Amino acid sequence: MADDKKLVKEITSMDEDFAQWYTDIVRKAELCDYTSVKGCMVIRPAGYAIWEAIQQNLDARFKATGVQNCSMPLFIPESLLQKEKDHVEGFAPEVAWVTQGGLEPLQERLCVRPTSETLFCDYYARTVHSYRDLPQNLNQWCSVVRWEKTTRPFLRSREFLWQEGHTVHATAEEAQERTEMMLNVYADFCEEDLAIPVVRGQKTDKEKFAGAVATYTIESLMHDGKALQSGTSHNFGDGFARAFGMQFQDRDNSLKYMHQTSWGMTTRMIGAIIMVHGDDSGLKLPPHIAPTQVIVIPVQMNKEGVLEKASELTESLKAAGIRVKLDDSDRRPGFKFADCEMRGIPLRVEIGPKDIAAEQCVLVRRDSGEKITASLDNLAATVTELLETIQRDMYERAKAHREAHTYDVQTMEEFADTVKNRPGFVRAMWCGCQECEDKIKEQTGATSRCIPFRQEQLSDTCVCCGKPATKMVYWGVAY
Amino acid sequence: MADDKKLVKEITSMDEDFAQWYTDIVRKAELCDYTSVKGCMVIRPAGYAIWEAIQQNLDARFKATGVQNCSMPLFIPESLLQKEKDHVEGFAPEVAWVTQGGLEPLQERLCVRPTSETLFCDYYARTVHSYRDLPQNLNQWCSVVRWEKTTRPFLRSREFLWQEGHTVHATAEEAQERTEMMLNVYADFCEEDLAIPVVRGQKTDKEKFAGAVATYTIESLMHDGKALQSGTSHNFGDGFARAFGMQFQDRDNSLKYMHQTSWGMTTRMIGAIIMVHGDDSGLKLPPHIAPTQVIVIPVQMNKEGVLEKASELTESLKAAGIRVKLDDSDRRPGFKFADCEMRGIPLRVEIGPKDIAAEQCVLVRRDSGEKITASLDNLAATVTELLETIQRDMYERAKAHREAHTYDVQTMEEFADTVKNRPGFVRAMWCGCQECEDKIKEQTGATSRCIPFRQEQLSDTCVCCGKPATKMVYWGVAY
Repeated sequence: MADDKKLVKEITSMDEDFAQWYTDIVRKAELCDYTSVKGCMVIRPAGYAIWEAIQQNLDARFKATGVQNCSMPLFIPESLLQKEKDHVEGFAPEVAWVTQGGLEPLQERLCVRPTSETLFCDYYARTVHSYRDLPQNLNQWCSVVRWEKTTRPFLRSREFLWQEGHTVHATAEEAQERTEMMLNVYADFCEEDLAIPVVRGQKTDKEKFAGAVATYTIESLMHDGKALQSGTSHNFGDGFARAFGMQFQDRDNSLKYMHQTSWGMTTRMIGAIIMVHGDDSGLKLPPHIAPTQVIVIPVQMNKEGVLEKASELTESLKAAGIRVKLDDSDRRPGFKFADCEMRGIPLRVEIGPKDIAAEQCVLVRRDSGEKITASLDNLAATVTELLETIQRDMYERAKAHREAHTYDVQTMEEFADTVKNRPGFVRAMWCGCQECEDKIKEQTGATSRCIPFRQEQLSDTCVCCGKPATKMVYWGVAY
Repeated sequence: MADDKKLVKEITSMDEDFAQWYTDIVRKAELCDYTSVKGCMVIRPAGYAIWEAIQQNLDARFKATGVQNCSMPLFIPESLLQKEKDHVEGFAPEVAWVTQGGLEPLQERLCVRPTSETLFCDYYARTVHSYRDLPQNLNQWCSVVRWEKTTRPFLRSREFLWQEGHTVHATAEEAQERTEMMLNVYADFCEEDLAIPVVRGQKTDKEKFAGAVATYTIESLMHDGKALQSGTSHNFGDGFARAFGMQFQDRDNSLKYMHQTSWGMTTRMIGAIIMVHGDDSGLKLPPHIAPTQVIVIPVQMNKEGVLEKASELTESLKAAGIRVKLDDSDRRPGFKFADCEMRGIPLRVEIGPKDIAAEQCVLVRRDSGEKITASLDNLAATVTELLETIQRDMYERAKAHREAHTYDVQTMEEFADTVKNRPGFVRAMWCGCQECEDKIKEQTGATSRCIPFRQEQLSDTCVCCGKPATKMVYWGVAY
């Protein structure tokens, strides 16, 4: 058993070296693999199954709000990328350029999309003519490329998977409503299904998206006290519309510019799941998005009737809609226990000859390690309820951790000391000017994460310059 | 009504100009749109919804055979692409090259994947060590890029969406079994769900995939008598394994090379659906993959109770698991009828005051135009059954069309005359040498489509050289 544990679990302790622990989990849980293309990754089946669960869940949430999927080209001609000034300035330094197609050089080089605002603008300018064509609520699931210098699996890679929603509306109000609606979809998804509590708020002007009028964000806190931007929603006003000539004929026959939004969530959420919930035994998947929610492990499998009973039990859980697998491989139970812990399966069912005789089994929670003896009678109902309890407890645990690592500061000394010695969110008042924002980054290493919707008046003056404060801001060191 | 028809349906007749008819349907049914990137397309929501239905259906079929999804990088370093000689020769002339990342030129140029054999090989070489790790049955849903000179929406574009499965096995037998299994998955999917009959067979050496030992294909016949390669499955033997050093330790401790397969199906199947089933009123979607199977159209919508009844009826169909929509827009019924015909919705339900009084409604089949008066009592069961009838009838109609356009020929004169005057599949005996295959193409314009699994002895001699025949072959002019 000790050997089994070692075999599966030989990973760095998270308290010793969090970055190495993260890398070890990614490797040992077989979530992804490096490739011969620097900065690009293979998402292995165990990792991709998590992404599929995220996709399914988010996609249903999108469609419930009237979103439709589509597919835009992978490439953007340089001239198209350059149409909106702020946007091209933001992205041009980090795109990959295609300069040759087949055996011939291209007349105009094409960038591999870093994001697709310009393609959607081009499409809407061509296809939307009247107020009757509005709103358009489109989304695509795809990969994008940003030529990052330093990369880490899931968190920052040169190519990553995401969804990008792009909508156009007849009025500014409707665009703002959609922007906030999608931020709330992300927030609800994170809290209800990933069991990750988030802070909802607005980015400062310095941190907002290239070309946006306003960027909204949900920010979550990882186990090591660093922040992770987990989803963003942008209101572009009519800036792109003016640059791309996106006009429509309104009810009163006048020509007007469309109002536009975009919003995205990426595979970095797999990194968030690892870093919010995981421990030194491996990954912990929240039941709502775990590809396998329950694993049934027969103990003394060769004894008569054990495998049959385990198999029957698996089928009965499956019939109740639970995502369950039976591990009937010829590995030792100790290895199987360690293995399913590493892979983060929320609940393990152990069943051996003694259990069968007593018409019971043992349930082991991955989140808390708790062992529960349960009657085989009505087991599906017990398990369904327990999975919901695990989901809720994982959220509460993450929330308690975040609250224990959120610090209010009044002075720059406190600020710098907190960032240095107590990693977490720092809450401090701010005057609203970029000068102070820059100075805070310089002096403490923290960036503004968001201006939360739920404001509190921690004091009357800016933590940096002492002038009257206008906003309470969440600050932190971010991934 | 005449005006409504014209408004929606102003498309070229298929008998007059099939290519233009195709383009008109693509545009009027809003399936896809051109972009500022030559040869790349936007797949619009109506088109993408069909692709989503195809994906869902195929993905479930794959997973039932033990396939898992994953994600490989978009880019392939030039040195990796070059490892397998035949493969690079086949693809190098038509790939797009990335030569610059961010502000700097790349040290080694990267091609945008035209297919991912080389990436999967690289991955399997790194991660598979023992017979215990085999088989690996992986698949990815993604887009690939091939720098084609002439392009057509869905049928041939520089970027297209597809799935590519790549498997590795311990034995040659198992690889061959998987190759044939996946061809059958494609064939069953086409026949059962797309209502498209296919011929299953093997490609000649001339037509096989770059690097494959054997390529299997399903070939279907479009309404205009041209053939469409609809799905392929390749057995690579251990050719790539030797080039990439993909070895594993077998049960007997000896090091062996893996045996490999790949198989793919693409968005060109949307083109196939258009060209097999469509007519001069628009698209016809088979019920199994129609994103909307039934549309409910209230007649005299403003009369009391009509909209309520239509809405109630829609809900009852939805509750029975039917994909149904209510068209309660303020457009005239005539426009709505023409519009849902153009979009190919399999069944239309019309309901007005007189129908309500008589406790009935009118069902209009898109495939045949047949109008059926049906009782509102138990309507969901009636509709469910009718959708299955439509699905079956669409398949039978396509099969009858193919059979009526399949010609057996004995001489080269007959062959050339058939290709010229009776577009369709030509069946003829062949000696097996590439010289005759080349000559047939030169003299008739037809290429070999496949050597069907179901052989018939049409004569004893090759249609071209008169030497003893070894195979009966399907020939045709292909998209």
